[in-house]
Amino acid sequence: MKLTIAVIPGDGIGPEVTAQAKKALNAVAEVYDHIFLYKEAQMGACAIEATGNPLPDATIKICKKADAILFGAIGELKYDNDPSAKVRPEQGLFRLRRELGLFCNIRPVKSYDKLIKNSPLKKEVISGTDIVIFRELTGGIYFGNKEISEDGKTASDVCSYTYEEISRVTHLAFKAAQDRRKKVTLIDKANVLETSRLWRKTVTEIAKEYSNVELNFMFVDNAAMQLVLNPTQFDVILTENLFGDIISAEASVFAGSIGLLASSSIGDKCALFEPIHGSYTQAKGKDIANPLGSILSAAMLLEHLGLREEADAIVRAVEKSLALGITTQDIKGKNQYAASTAKVGDFIADYIANQEDSNM
Amino acid sequence: MKLTIAVIPGDGIGPEVTAQAKKALNAVAEVYDHIFLYKEAQMGACAIEATGNPLPDATIKICKKADAILFGAIGELKYDNDPSAKVRPEQGLFRLRRELGLFCNIRPVKSYDKLIKNSPLKKEVISGTDIVIFRELTGGIYFGNKEISEDGKTASDVCSYTYEEISRVTHLAFKAAQDRRKKVTLIDKANVLETSRLWRKTVTEIAKEYSNVELNFMFVDNAAMQLVLNPTQFDVILTENLFGDIISAEASVFAGSIGLLASSSIGDKCALFEPIHGSYTQAKGKDIANPLGSILSAAMLLEHLGLREEADAIVRAVEKSLALGITTQDIKGKNQYAASTAKVGDFIADYIANQEDSNM
Ligand SMILES: CC(C)[C@H](C(=O)O)[C@@H](O)C(=O)O
Ligand SMILES: CC(C)[C@H](C(=O)O)[C@@H](O)C(=O)O
Repeated sequence: MKLTIAVIPGDGIGPEVTAQAKKALNAVAEVYDHIFLYKEAQMGACAIEATGNPLPDATIKICKKADAILFGAIGELKYDNDPSAKVRPEQGLFRLRRELGLFCNIRPVKSYDKLIKNSPLKKEVISGTDIVIFRELTGGIYFGNKEISEDGKTASDVCSYTYEEISRVTHLAFKAAQDRRKKVTLIDKANVLETSRLWRKTVTEIAKEYSNVELNFMFVDNAAMQLVLNPTQFDVILTENLFGDIISAEASVFAGSIGLLASSSIGDKCALFEPIHGSYTQAKGKDIANPLGSILSAAMLLEHLGLREEADAIVRAVEKSLALGITTQDIKGKNQYAASTAKVGDFIADYIANQEDSNM
Repeated sequence: MKLTIAVIPGDGIGPEVTAQAKKALNAVAEVYDHIFLYKEAQMGACAIEATGNPLPDATIKICKKADAILFGAIGELKYDNDPSAKVRPEQGLFRLRRELGLFCNIRPVKSYDKLIKNSPLKKEVISGTDIVIFRELTGGIYFGNKEISEDGKTASDVCSYTYEEISRVTHLAFKAAQDRRKKVTLIDKANVLETSRLWRKTVTEIAKEYSNVELNFMFVDNAAMQLVLNPTQFDVILTENLFGDIISAEASVFAGSIGLLASSSIGDKCALFEPIHGSYTQAKGKDIANPLGSILSAAMLLEHLGLREEADAIVRAVEKSLALGITTQDIKGKNQYAASTAKVGDFIADYIANQEDSNM
């Protein structure tokens, strides 16, 4: 198979970890006889620096033409602490989500036995957790009208949702639930928000088409609590954009390392894959960032394109690296050496190459 | 001292736990020679049932005249699951917050050594946690314009903030920080929301008046993560209404029992005190609900009115009940009997009466 993969390394540790994911993809290409063409594109702070625009047109073009997009991370501290900056790295990511219609963000959160010791939660609480979060990604308060008054003393943001926006991500969540434990929990704030009531109504209606899936409702404040108290009660979580941002960040610490989690953002025509860890600029260039999130994003990408066996080969390599303790400092065991970002990438690539050799 | 206390038992377990708080207050009144006059008022589902209105005018009147308000809980399952209900219990609480100008919600979260075993977090993570959350309570998306289109297919909620709204709660948070570990963390989503950028700008400006207090910023998604990863890093948290709802709910599970946490909602002229646990209707009338949250709310009420010694007497009684294991089922030890709601209340009242006797 010949595939074009748009690669957006982005900011902070993005380039380093993406480079490791490419190593893994190259190993897969060799073993399974595929051709992967990489098209690099810019987005974020680096794009602002280079072009003044966090999302240059060239990037959109490259992404639209590609079979899938591999993305690193976005964001620079200097913009975070400057509320007056008009051009911000993150705008690139929002606009890309919007331009490509990436309306559904999917974040699996699973507790790895090997990493439970790193989780802030007690073993008996976290053990067995296996959640997938479906977050609406192109609507809500992220994209609503924003205003600041002339005197700079009053600001507003509008959150709005339509039936269609809710419906399409809901169908994806229910379909996923059918292949899993058949339970969807809608997280909202229907006791306060009109948009949440529209979510509850719409999702209730659509749920009727999936009679073998159980639907539950939970207020977002209660969900923030329940996630910590009893994460194993959740199977598929479905929620709007801002709640999804908060809830999936909260859930991401359970696994024992955020450096390990991957996500996909999909639309009708395009799909983007990224680790959830963010740009982590403090670690930039130090060769210490955990590349597994990016590598597992590459696995999700392959699976999305129908290359399930290839995806599994990557996942097996990651599991091996955990089992052997060939990992970066953030998840290393007590008496283990920490491997560098590049070393972990090399190990994964080698293992993919060799495990297949020995299978043949 | 002669004080008028408005008492709003509310829904679910509200009446049961409030009754225990009154026992504690009565014991205090006797020992310290005060007169507490209670004025009962209705709010929530019970008020809808009785009057059709979740917040009858009589309630507002009683609250405005009182020196402080003791509130139980609000909410009934049947309204939660009916998105089409036009009249909702919670509206009573919002409107009360708004009518009385209760713009600042204060929630202390402290880990009790005795209860750490009940926390979902590992001991080394939670131990030493001592946070106070300042949540803006009468602005933001809770009170902004809400719309649903005629065809019922598009909904919107507006979040807005003014300089003044941000300013007054900010001053309270910084003042509290001065008496504590001198650190304020503002939680927002300034990389996305215009209102958050106004928060960041306003708070940064006001912080200059408190030069001995350190100000930090944290995006709400990161905060949801950091709270679980490392709660001891926080001292005073300052945030807007909706984020405050989510973040304080999340933080509330750390202590090992949500049944124990109290909160105050204060304005320029009024102050309301309530446990944070909510109506928990499943337990209603069973005499199993934990009354300590309500009892500690009564202690906060006394302290707010300048009766610090009296407040301390309640807190000591609560600590004694924990030490002796005279507690409801939710926090009882392995081989202990669970005491009923009323029994815990009786113990607290007795202890207040007798500890003072023995001091005299
Ligand atoms: C970078 C940031 C604006 C973004 C978001 O809030 O969507 C991130 O937190 C995410 O979840 O992808
Ligand atoms: C009852 C509910 C609407 C309320 C809120 O969201 O403010 C509650 O969660 C709270 O925090 O007091």
